[in-house]
Amino acid sequence: MDAMPHVEFRTSPARYKHWRLAADGPVATVTMDVDEQGGLVPGYELKLNSYDLGVDIELYDAIQRLRFEHPEVKTVVLTSGKDRMFCAGANIRMLAAASHPWKVNFCKFTNETRNGIEDATANSGQTYIAALNGTASGGGYELALACEQILLVDDRSSVVSLPELPLLGVLPGTGGLTRVVDKRHVRRDLADYFSTKSEGIGGKKAVQWKLVDEIVPRVRWDEIVSERSRGSASTSARLPGGPGIELTALDKVRTEDSISYEHVAARLDRDRAVAAITVTGPSATVLPTTGPPSMADVYAQGAAFWSLAVARELDDLILDLRTNEIEIGTWTFETAGSADRVLACDELLLANYDTDWLAREIVLYLKRTLKRLDVTSRSLIALIKPGSCFAGSLLELAFAADRSYMLTGVFEEEDREADPATITIGPMNLGPLPMGNDLTRLRTRFLGDPDALAAVEKTAGERLEAEEAEQLGLVTFAPDDIDWDEEVRIAVEERASFSPDALTGLEANYRFAGPETIETKIFGRLTAWQNWIFYRPNASGPDGALRAYGTGKRADFDRKRV
Amino acid sequence: MDAMPHVEFRTSPARYKHWRLAADGPVATVTMDVDEQGGLVPGYELKLNSYDLGVDIELYDAIQRLRFEHPEVKTVVLTSGKDRMFCAGANIRMLAAASHPWKVNFCKFTNETRNGIEDATANSGQTYIAALNGTASGGGYELALACEQILLVDDRSSVVSLPELPLLGVLPGTGGLTRVVDKRHVRRDLADYFSTKSEGIGGKKAVQWKLVDEIVPRVRWDEIVSERSRGSASTSARLPGGPGIELTALDKVRTEDSISYEHVAARLDRDRAVAAITVTGPSATVLPTTGPPSMADVYAQGAAFWSLAVARELDDLILDLRTNEIEIGTWTFETAGSADRVLACDELLLANYDTDWLAREIVLYLKRTLKRLDVTSRSLIALIKPGSCFAGSLLELAFAADRSYMLTGVFEEEDREADPATITIGPMNLGPLPMGNDLTRLRTRFLGDPDALAAVEKTAGERLEAEEAEQLGLVTFAPDDIDWDEEVRIAVEERASFSPDALTGLEANYRFAGPETIETKIFGRLTAWQNWIFYRPNASGPDGALRAYGTGKRADFDRKRV
Repeated sequence: MDAMPHVEFRTSPARYKHWRLAADGPVATVTMDVDEQGGLVPGYELKLNSYDLGVDIELYDAIQRLRFEHPEVKTVVLTSGKDRMFCAGANIRMLAAASHPWKVNFCKFTNETRNGIEDATANSGQTYIAALNGTASGGGYELALACEQILLVDDRSSVVSLPELPLLGVLPGTGGLTRVVDKRHVRRDLADYFSTKSEGIGGKKAVQWKLVDEIVPRVRWDEIVSERSRGSASTSARLPGGPGIELTALDKVRTEDSISYEHVAARLDRDRAVAAITVTGPSATVLPTTGPPSMADVYAQGAAFWSLAVARELDDLILDLRTNEIEIGTWTFETAGSADRVLACDELLLANYDTDWLAREIVLYLKRTLKRLDVTSRSLIALIKPGSCFAGSLLELAFAADRSYMLTGVFEEEDREADPATITIGPMNLGPLPMGNDLTRLRTRFLGDPDALAAVEKTAGERLEAEEAEQLGLVTFAPDDIDWDEEVRIAVEERASFSPDALTGLEANYRFAGPETIETKIFGRLTAWQNWIFYRPNASGPDGALRAYGTGKRADFDRKRV
Repeated sequence: MDAMPHVEFRTSPARYKHWRLAADGPVATVTMDVDEQGGLVPGYELKLNSYDLGVDIELYDAIQRLRFEHPEVKTVVLTSGKDRMFCAGANIRMLAAASHPWKVNFCKFTNETRNGIEDATANSGQTYIAALNGTASGGGYELALACEQILLVDDRSSVVSLPELPLLGVLPGTGGLTRVVDKRHVRRDLADYFSTKSEGIGGKKAVQWKLVDEIVPRVRWDEIVSERSRGSASTSARLPGGPGIELTALDKVRTEDSISYEHVAARLDRDRAVAAITVTGPSATVLPTTGPPSMADVYAQGAAFWSLAVARELDDLILDLRTNEIEIGTWTFETAGSADRVLACDELLLANYDTDWLAREIVLYLKRTLKRLDVTSRSLIALIKPGSCFAGSLLELAFAADRSYMLTGVFEEEDREADPATITIGPMNLGPLPMGNDLTRLRTRFLGDPDALAAVEKTAGERLEAEEAEQLGLVTFAPDDIDWDEEVRIAVEERASFSPDALTGLEANYRFAGPETIETKIFGRLTAWQNWIFYRPNASGPDGALRAYGTGKRADFDRKRV
């Protein structure tokens, strides 16, 4: 598995191998029933409801569809189709055989999916309940930890456990360590004991230690799960509405050196290790030209509505490039189109955010997609040129970037009559699209400098040309026509010459100035330690615990404490 | 340098090779003037005021002495004795040759020392000013970042820089990335540019970007540095007092299998990979038996006063074991003595914390020493038995531990007449000794459970036996005589059987539940990424950037982005 297979993230329920999705009024049940032979890559069997990236891609798809296609659903019950086994976690054979980048990418995606579960619970009124009808071990328990409530069957054999450390010499890296103490408030010394006890904990002690919320005898299982899920649904803040919007198949064309969707395209320059991404703004027909725009227009267009389509296309592109193009270390972002229309779409969504489920879902999806960028281990550079539409939601691409270049004036030889590029702060930049640290990208940018932030906020709605944007601190550099090519070229080439590892570390630190949350702790503290552990021979060497597991051999550790 | 040399942390100004300490009334000047030939280990020259662990050990000693031996000092000017070079950072040849554990340990200690500089500024009224009379590069600039003000000479050649990423393929890992954005609030995109520009930034732009506070022409250098330092001293909140307390040489005996001081001793069991540490409480003569105890008693005893002596001994022991005994993965903590006298010492110090500089310094030193434990990559287990004195400041050892075992009842065969062990919450547990996350260990322990915390606080001053302590959540387990040996043995043996790397990661996550601060971000996010990068071939492999630097060879990177 050193040569990583090409992975496609697009799927749909009809193609699921591992999950069943059943909506029954306000309660949906998502049942994990992994096909042992359905691994994404040959070489392992997905026994005991263990999962690989393919299983998680389906879960991600199911969660997305619940939000858009099932607006009536207020509670999602996550359970297992196997007997006495909820989920045994990530498949060990798969992990043991996987390359380091694959492991890291796999964990990042699974973490994002679990954060998406919490986002649905917190912001979308779709509350997740883990109905552990059998043992939840390792990543299986971590999946449960992402839910709002955890019910565990009380049958003297079903337990929750985090056996990664004692059995595999790695961490529960899908949020487990962070959520145990920071979300569920398990006492740290009990958490320590729990995470070294491979056989897990069930019964009353699991409740006393706060590892689960409730234990339920098997005879009352169905009744209690139903009661809890209806109870949760009855207090849900889900906005009313329905029917849903179908997430139709994304129109995607992939060639050797390009990936294209309707509004998003990437040119892959492998020699320079750059993906040049262009996002096109809404067409003139996105909203009616006469009369005020309304959500009826959005419902009519469904998945084709620009904001939603762009979120989906960007989402898929990010995942594709991250997984399949790991030697392309820099992504540049350009936009093309009408800033007014971007702002009009933004405005329509925000005007209905508090009352319309679909408006809210689209905004939340934009938020999650942009968050993916923040944790992407690629250098991000925004290039702001004439004809672009970096405004509101699309301006977030520039704020997510590690650097931005904005052309002062125009390209004299190309089109001397063009209007100079502008950027526009809109309401989407001032709150609805926070980063994982719970601050907007603007607040993170101007951390500790409230005056600069206030000055920027005051310009909302104004078209800012390069010089002003630079003075306000909204773009990094504002070269003119004469310097542009050289400056941008150097930035991109330099990036390709630096250590990819050091860039990943640098960006992971600078992007997350300011406070930390459970989410940023998972991607920062927990993931960074896990990546180190994954790379060490004690886990992944020929005698490491991850590779020794199941072979009958004992791991041979270098005992030095580092 | 794969075989790590034995390192001794005890030193004194008379033995400094690399620093000069000059106190002049309220202003002290600490001058870095590194002896090129004075490296701790053969094989490199400490050119351009670059440093190794030996240089930093002296700096740490100087900082400690300023606090205790120079209470009159309110401002400390950190400057260089070299021409046009403040400090070139950590020595690259040293780093390139160092083993992974050595690198990590080195960074941890230097980080703690820089945090100590900030602690002196924030809590002790000794404000640090970096007077950069030449270039401050890499770790040199990171040292400046730990200071409250940074002055840079404006001479068209002196700059500040973080060239680690472009030149060495590693991070500025001594707090640099965190302090640039989180402390100095340099905008993240400017920080990104700055950290990829190996030649650094000086002059006005360094001020505009907030990299330094002020640039000063060379002709006015002495005058302005003097003005700023006197100005800072005049507004210092340093408590009045003097003369200082001499930090006399620590009495330490090290044998093959033990390290002993007056109040602290460690038995090293290499077979079981355990250091059994015992801290002895104050003797009967520590405070007068008649009349109320007063700070006069403390001044009379000086460095021999129990609380200060224990802080120093523990501090040295932690550093010694961390650096010299890296295969000893578990430390157990026991105490012996009178809980009343521990609490009496605590009380005396806290009663005078707001008015007496020495009382405050001792408490702050206890705090820093306990913080070292929190970031120590060893499993910590507290063993609470009859005859122990886990009360107040010493009880923090149990709260810092990953787990604690407290004997219920007594050892029947050993001494059936003994009093059962008790623990006592004192005022030291309720505020003055916070962790790096700014919460007390008790608050971190009971995160999200204010009722449990309140119940514990209510017991302050009470002697709590094992059962009650366990019910209150203050100890992990309370086995009786029959189970004790077996339970403790299993805990210790298990620990020795686990992956040392995974334990380090587990502990680094569970110990820091709750909020993150600049300090915890440095030890969590930044350090964890740096450790990963340090371990990757792109930095430390035969063709890695760290090893290629200065050889004329170009680093050969695996270009995969992870």
